[in-house]
Amino acid sequence: MDMNTVARLVSRPVGLVTRENFDICEQARVEPGEGQFQVKVEMISIDPAMRGWMNEGRSYIPPVGIGEVMRALAGGTVVKSNHPGFSVGDTVTGLFGVQAYALSDGAGVTAVDTSKATLADWLGGLGMPGITAYFGLTEIGQPKAGETVLVSAASGAVGSIVGQLAKIMGCRAVGIAGGPEKCRYVVEKLGFDGCIDYKNDTLTQALDSQCPDGVDVYFENVGGEIFDTVLTRMNLFGRIAVCGMISAYNAIEAPPGPKNLRAVLVNRLTMRGFIVFDFIDRYPEAIRALGDWHDQGRIKFRQDVRPGGIEAFPEVLNLLFSGANQGKLVLQV
Amino acid sequence: MDMNTVARLVSRPVGLVTRENFDICEQARVEPGEGQFQVKVEMISIDPAMRGWMNEGRSYIPPVGIGEVMRALAGGTVVKSNHPGFSVGDTVTGLFGVQAYALSDGAGVTAVDTSKATLADWLGGLGMPGITAYFGLTEIGQPKAGETVLVSAASGAVGSIVGQLAKIMGCRAVGIAGGPEKCRYVVEKLGFDGCIDYKNDTLTQALDSQCPDGVDVYFENVGGEIFDTVLTRMNLFGRIAVCGMISAYNAIEAPPGPKNLRAVLVNRLTMRGFIVFDFIDRYPEAIRALGDWHDQGRIKFRQDVRPGGIEAFPEVLNLLFSGANQGKLVLQV
Repeated sequence: MDMNTVARLVSRPVGLVTRENFDICEQARVEPGEGQFQVKVEMISIDPAMRGWMNEGRSYIPPVGIGEVMRALAGGTVVKSNHPGFSVGDTVTGLFGVQAYALSDGAGVTAVDTSKATLADWLGGLGMPGITAYFGLTEIGQPKAGETVLVSAASGAVGSIVGQLAKIMGCRAVGIAGGPEKCRYVVEKLGFDGCIDYKNDTLTQALDSQCPDGVDVYFENVGGEIFDTVLTRMNLFGRIAVCGMISAYNAIEAPPGPKNLRAVLVNRLTMRGFIVFDFIDRYPEAIRALGDWHDQGRIKFRQDVRPGGIEAFPEVLNLLFSGANQGKLVLQV
Repeated sequence: MDMNTVARLVSRPVGLVTRENFDICEQARVEPGEGQFQVKVEMISIDPAMRGWMNEGRSYIPPVGIGEVMRALAGGTVVKSNHPGFSVGDTVTGLFGVQAYALSDGAGVTAVDTSKATLADWLGGLGMPGITAYFGLTEIGQPKAGETVLVSAASGAVGSIVGQLAKIMGCRAVGIAGGPEKCRYVVEKLGFDGCIDYKNDTLTQALDSQCPDGVDVYFENVGGEIFDTVLTRMNLFGRIAVCGMISAYNAIEAPPGPKNLRAVLVNRLTMRGFIVFDFIDRYPEAIRALGDWHDQGRIKFRQDVRPGGIEAFPEVLNLLFSGANQGKLVLQV
């Protein structure tokens, strides 16, 4: 019998996820029915949002149910098909879950061209993180040439692309990242104008020196104290694109809110939350733009591919929250 | 010698203002020079923003300097004029300050028609508070017919007009106010669909019953815990117009920020601060619209005119922060 390795959520994590929150086991592979196909999953995208999907309560999509396969974006190869649109051998991405083989009816699945970019790139810079950076910056941030764009988690999957796009748009791009190695990478390899090391710099002083004209667009990935401090540096009519607040994702109690929110009033800031799914009709536009800039060498993608297979999922996910990843985190199956 | 009564700021308040923060004295009236006119101030507009103007530090306009006449919007009659645009007998409004006689070169001064509305109305519903309500709701809130608009400080100068405008736009209008008398006024006299008494109701329960379909537009005047709780009731793609955060204006230390700010991300909210001055080029549009609706009996203005003259200014200002005023607060000189 053909087998599948599957990670099911069996309890809701409190704080960081543990191995015990998952039942990772072997089970019989289900054969594709009429209009379905089977994907051999090769790479699983590891994203901060996954932590939120494990929590009970109202959010932008329903939580993963107890006993269900953990939700995940992933990429792989079609190995069996009864679907007219997908053939054996196609490389595809979609919400395949944390498992070795997935069944699909094609909903939300995209065939990708691996002669153009690697599968990991199709999960990273040309996938959800890249598209998130593109719409978050252009639609929510609306930067104008000459403005200062500040982005937190600047060496991460989304942040690294936000800063590179800001440069393409003629802005000063400044990152915030943890540690000298990440900061060096952001400036030297990605071409940001500056990067603040929140683990070693005094944030207020570093903001003064790296953003001498204040901040026009803040692309928010982290929340917490960094957000609170950046509020005090926002320019008149500044925009804050709220993409994530990773510092709170594992919090057991809601952390304190920002004390400096009065800046929204005094400086007439616009703060807007968004989810990449809101732009689903315009994904092709983003993928085309990102692909072209990548082909022209104007943006670089970096993937951090970790071995270990399905079994390693809980441990690899937690790398995001300790900041141990370097670029887009992907689990190799 | 002709005399003037003047209130000068002599120290920066800590918490609520006290009589000792002001030097209120008699001084010689200054005669108008070439291109100037003298206004006998009859009514002084008492606004929450005045408290902020007394604080040191960067804000949307420079603070009132120590020793300067306290800044205030006011209305009165031109009694002497060397200005071609303003004649003796004209009724005018402008930033005349907390004093009995003001000198002006006409900058920011508007001649008003008291056959159309009272001077107090020209400082209220047809003045800054009305214009603030108009642009805050239409431009920032962008309500659509059938949506729920929630407004805090609903019986106040701005809030009372926001709710009435929301009704004109076909929305469900719900207020938040302190005490049964204000709530009754808001529903019975102003025509709101409902009003939550934050002093006596449990806010979460009252929001559930008064806003059964959630909140699409929140017009924010108060900040603090009310704001934090309302965040949990905002609908997908909701808008928050941040007009004021009166609960913090007298705070000695910055109060805690909202714990529920993650709602901005999850529900893709847009939160935007604004100041009425941002719309200065479009004031005539607002005044025309408000005037027409007022003439048609579709919106009501209420003024709370207090006697006592310049000497009473500190005490009357503090009525705003205890919530003792009923409608637009005006000090009669």
